[in-house]
Amino acid sequence: MSGELDCLFTPHRVAVVGAGTKPTNLGHMVVRNLLNGNFDGVVYPINPKHESIGGVPAFPSVRETPETPDLAILCVPAVGVLDVVKQCAEAGVKGIICMAAGFREVGPEGRAMEDHVVDICHKAGMRLLGPNCLGLQVPERRLNATFAGHMPKPGNIALVSQSGALTAAVIEWALGKGIGFSKLVTLGNAADVELAATLDYLVDDKDTHAAVVYAESISDAQAFTAAARRFTAKKPLVIYKAGRFAASAKAAVSHTGAMAGADEVYNAAFERVGATRVLRISDLYHTIELLAADRTAHQPTLAVVTNAGGPGVMSVDALSERGGRLAEISPSTLDALNEVLPTAWSHANPIDVLGDAPAKRYQAAIKAAVSEDDADGILVILTPQAMTDILGSADAVIAAAQTTDKPVLAVWMGGGAENDKAIAKLASAGIPTFDFPENAVDAFVNTTQSQSYTDRAAAPAAVADDFAPDRERAAALIAGVPDSGLLPETESKELFDAYGIPVALPRLATSADQAAKLADEMGYPVVAKIASPDITHKTDVGGVVVGPKNADEVRAAFEQIVANAKKAKPEAHIEGVVIEQMVGAGNAELILGSTRDPSFGQTIMVAAGGTSAEILKDSALQLAPVDAGLARTMVESLRIWPLIKGYRGAEGADVDALVKVITRFSTLVADHPEITETEMNPLTVSPSGAIALDARAVIDRDALANPPAKYSHLGILPE
Amino acid sequence: MSGELDCLFTPHRVAVVGAGTKPTNLGHMVVRNLLNGNFDGVVYPINPKHESIGGVPAFPSVRETPETPDLAILCVPAVGVLDVVKQCAEAGVKGIICMAAGFREVGPEGRAMEDHVVDICHKAGMRLLGPNCLGLQVPERRLNATFAGHMPKPGNIALVSQSGALTAAVIEWALGKGIGFSKLVTLGNAADVELAATLDYLVDDKDTHAAVVYAESISDAQAFTAAARRFTAKKPLVIYKAGRFAASAKAAVSHTGAMAGADEVYNAAFERVGATRVLRISDLYHTIELLAADRTAHQPTLAVVTNAGGPGVMSVDALSERGGRLAEISPSTLDALNEVLPTAWSHANPIDVLGDAPAKRYQAAIKAAVSEDDADGILVILTPQAMTDILGSADAVIAAAQTTDKPVLAVWMGGGAENDKAIAKLASAGIPTFDFPENAVDAFVNTTQSQSYTDRAAAPAAVADDFAPDRERAAALIAGVPDSGLLPETESKELFDAYGIPVALPRLATSADQAAKLADEMGYPVVAKIASPDITHKTDVGGVVVGPKNADEVRAAFEQIVANAKKAKPEAHIEGVVIEQMVGAGNAELILGSTRDPSFGQTIMVAAGGTSAEILKDSALQLAPVDAGLARTMVESLRIWPLIKGYRGAEGADVDALVKVITRFSTLVADHPEITETEMNPLTVSPSGAIALDARAVIDRDALANPPAKYSHLGILPE
Repeated sequence: MSGELDCLFTPHRVAVVGAGTKPTNLGHMVVRNLLNGNFDGVVYPINPKHESIGGVPAFPSVRETPETPDLAILCVPAVGVLDVVKQCAEAGVKGIICMAAGFREVGPEGRAMEDHVVDICHKAGMRLLGPNCLGLQVPERRLNATFAGHMPKPGNIALVSQSGALTAAVIEWALGKGIGFSKLVTLGNAADVELAATLDYLVDDKDTHAAVVYAESISDAQAFTAAARRFTAKKPLVIYKAGRFAASAKAAVSHTGAMAGADEVYNAAFERVGATRVLRISDLYHTIELLAADRTAHQPTLAVVTNAGGPGVMSVDALSERGGRLAEISPSTLDALNEVLPTAWSHANPIDVLGDAPAKRYQAAIKAAVSEDDADGILVILTPQAMTDILGSADAVIAAAQTTDKPVLAVWMGGGAENDKAIAKLASAGIPTFDFPENAVDAFVNTTQSQSYTDRAAAPAAVADDFAPDRERAAALIAGVPDSGLLPETESKELFDAYGIPVALPRLATSADQAAKLADEMGYPVVAKIASPDITHKTDVGGVVVGPKNADEVRAAFEQIVANAKKAKPEAHIEGVVIEQMVGAGNAELILGSTRDPSFGQTIMVAAGGTSAEILKDSALQLAPVDAGLARTMVESLRIWPLIKGYRGAEGADVDALVKVITRFSTLVADHPEITETEMNPLTVSPSGAIALDARAVIDRDALANPPAKYSHLGILPE
Repeated sequence: MSGELDCLFTPHRVAVVGAGTKPTNLGHMVVRNLLNGNFDGVVYPINPKHESIGGVPAFPSVRETPETPDLAILCVPAVGVLDVVKQCAEAGVKGIICMAAGFREVGPEGRAMEDHVVDICHKAGMRLLGPNCLGLQVPERRLNATFAGHMPKPGNIALVSQSGALTAAVIEWALGKGIGFSKLVTLGNAADVELAATLDYLVDDKDTHAAVVYAESISDAQAFTAAARRFTAKKPLVIYKAGRFAASAKAAVSHTGAMAGADEVYNAAFERVGATRVLRISDLYHTIELLAADRTAHQPTLAVVTNAGGPGVMSVDALSERGGRLAEISPSTLDALNEVLPTAWSHANPIDVLGDAPAKRYQAAIKAAVSEDDADGILVILTPQAMTDILGSADAVIAAAQTTDKPVLAVWMGGGAENDKAIAKLASAGIPTFDFPENAVDAFVNTTQSQSYTDRAAAPAAVADDFAPDRERAAALIAGVPDSGLLPETESKELFDAYGIPVALPRLATSADQAAKLADEMGYPVVAKIASPDITHKTDVGGVVVGPKNADEVRAAFEQIVANAKKAKPEAHIEGVVIEQMVGAGNAELILGSTRDPSFGQTIMVAAGGTSAEILKDSALQLAPVDAGLARTMVESLRIWPLIKGYRGAEGADVDALVKVITRFSTLVADHPEITETEMNPLTVSPSGAIALDARAVIDRDALANPPAKYSHLGILPE
């Protein structure tokens, strides 16, 4: 499957369609870039009016080249693309890069044209990159198939970007920093080749050890989550998603809908697939810098070697902020450090080698620090002081880094020619360098995060535990939804009940004995209420008894209520008495709900309930479905988790029961694509279990009429 | 007063004590730095053994120089400092810089030595910078009184730092960036001249337009807050405080104590004095870069001009995150932009001038953007694309910037020689440049923040409103505290009552009529309870009646309770019946408390109460005292503010009454330095007011015995 994109990444013969003679012509630039890159394949400029382009023999069309091109780079304007694509299909071209803008992004006409182009490609078995893109670069193959003039050196990182402008900026920056890339791909409109297909290609690409993604949107969520999970199982994946605050609030009928912002869904999706999300573009650059060093750390534990206290504290602050920690210095490492450092050293991590540290002292301290088992990485900080050997200390880092496989990060603070020289030296030895301690820590935590997320990336099976939902009853309840699409409270509760979720379901008793039997089943205390279509204000007629504690009391309540009602309203039709479980406040009132995200499909949210739910926004969100492990993680991540667990000596709630409710709820949501939104509010948790006291569900009646494919409403496919 | 430090900042004759002949000798380096800086005063190397140092005539002691030195820089080791300081005092030297380490920071002996030195200085009227510092630089006067080899160019920013190493790094960085400083001061141990004195000097220094502070701790809080407020009234103040997460949790008896972390107190203090706190050192550098441009913006509203969408979105994300916003483009600005931009431009802010923008288009767009009234600053972003005129566009920014006083910030993304050239060009024209859009936004918001904080920096008067606290009663209650220091609930409530704070105070009635009268005063409903030292379980004897709603019911309850008690326990001594107001849940239960911070004295905290208080940490903290404006700001900043204000149609609480409770509480705390910790928990707020249902106070019995000076326990002095 991954071989499918070889036509794009490893072409031998490349046609450049629309290459003109002017140096400012787009196609001309692409030809020039291919030649300047020293591409070792064949370049065919395509131009019906000229014999050559920049001295290179040109051909009138892709059908008239000496050999069939593997790849055609289309540098013609949008209006001419369709014809050329048809010619490519006829000629047997395998891959197309289309640079022109003017397609889907400009409106319906452009979209139709794009769809037409994709259709031809699919039928001809051609793969298409773009349109509206900068192209791609494969430095190792000296293939610069872009209109960007420069190309970084070969390296181990793949950049996949939806922005050509950002890619151009990264290229220039990487050149200055000496950072190499395995592939640089700009997806543009991603009409055919999108992020998922690219990741699937890169996961098997031996030159690629990590991928860095600049995304503006994710189109096919299932394809993305599947590909990303395959990728992160083998290699780190770091994603910058633009537009965090741009998403406007959605109209929604439930708390869940109002609380689940689009950006939280991206967080959930990226974490779920084991990708690290970075929130600032600078953080992406810093992370690239560290990934380029190609050394792996699994835990965010750092040993810091510094010649000044202040910058050491900065790194500690940043580590704490980002959830990393300082490595603990073992007695043997302490001994080793004592041997090589003056007595006034800090005797702790950060390892302060003091302001007068010569290069040798740095080297000895770093060597001791790398051998500390608890440290997964080493950060070396230098500030220029009176005695500081700026260059020699850089050599010391390089020498010490050769004694370990752990990542070694360098922060040479200050500036000036000597510092620049030291940084260049470090960089050319493959030591990542950063301007400030915080940047180094960010990069370090980012790369370890991708590892730790991977552990929980396993997709849950669709059915959560060995329970047998009453699917027929559920389907019938859903099918019976009124035209409004809003399932009434009782039917919503019945729906949850069909999936084995405890609900406070009022049940009708037509005799005192039946009332006692129902109450026995529910558990005491209960509430008994008159059931009559003719009686609205039940308490006014003495039609409610609160709190019967045993079967006898229930029987007595039944008789009493019926007698009261008959006396007060002799003409009323009496159906019987409704029995309902009384549920106390428990440890906490939660909200458990599901809502549909336009990109990532059904999501499941657990939140703190009560009046303050919307205000405090104490919630956890995951893509559906979730398994028991994820459900537990969600509950434990709530700020009110201590209340659930049992706060200050209070008995803890039955968390297993709560987890079971969540996974069963997840199964319900996964089974029924017609459900657009559901909510239990409150879901009360106590030592004796979890029970939903109120329920609602919104049904998509169109989906009911035209059932969508199984699981098509999920952003992550169950196994 | 500010003139006092002229001896340090504007000396004419400078003695360097301990200057040796070796180039690596500290004093030798200082002499060399003074000469290399081209200092236009007189340098006297002091060395009893050599005729000259580096060719400069030397003198045996500060008493034997041709003229009395204004400033003596002490480069001798700690052990020799005391003697030299005595000689300086005898000679009539006015200022001393002491570089040696080995004083307070190494233990009690060092501290004693330091105290002795300071004592001599005070007696002789000498000012002392250090010990344990790098010295100071005044570029405008070509005075490099440090052992750092380089000095930045003259500029408008003052750097005040507790770290010499960090200062050395800033110097090197500033040289590379071409950023100028008015003064660079390293405080070291700040034995005499500390942050407050330095700020007081700088506020009147015409060369200093803004100050940037690197602080590790604040010693004299009152002096600092006073000086900082004087400073921010005129000039921006930006502070980086190291060690955010290092502070360990304090042992505390109240929620308030447990909830107020040391770092939150720094936040409160810096905000209170109108200073901007930056949390990452990189942010400090970026802010310096913008401050160096010496243009002022008051609101964080930005117009963004960019040639690519992605980086524009990054700036929007960063603005939203930091509480800034995009300027709204008025119709007239829109017209102006339409005239100069191609039709495909974004027609909104960010102003996307499109990927093919030539320099002229940039210039025209920026010119239109700067004239938009809603924009307080302009951010120009360039990404290198096929047609991009990297250098020409820099010229365009420079030209457009000359048409406005607003800050213009530039982000030239990418890298490479041409980009470096463009950035150098921008920098030398005084345009601040940043690597990434987010960094520019950070700097912009930071500089506007200092302005907006200043508006609320006014210190409140000690007595909050025109109420007359019963100070005698309060003093008597405090004096009567038991040995434990813990004031019992009733006495604590009485203490608050003495300061006009509504409390649910149980009151004893000895007759049915008196009970009715008390209940009338409190408001209904009430609770009536038997008062007898012999009856512990009041309900067991029928000694409690909950909910009497009027005087008759109270009278009946009184008789009933007394009769019940007499019947159940005929031998019990009955004092009467206690009447207590019944208070419902109201809009919210709050916690109002005070706690003592070791640096900043009494602080006042308002927090959401209830079981979840400790867990949710929804709280606002301020240095005491607070006025009504600050009290209101605190309440409004709570996440549960919507509940207090009236959520979803519910009637709002009486916020004025709540504010009054807070200011009266603040007055109580300000009046009584013996109070170490107090708390009302809960303080219930409802439409009918605010009332404390439980109260406690911790009294410092030592302070009771030896009353401290008025207001000495406050970090900010009332006016």
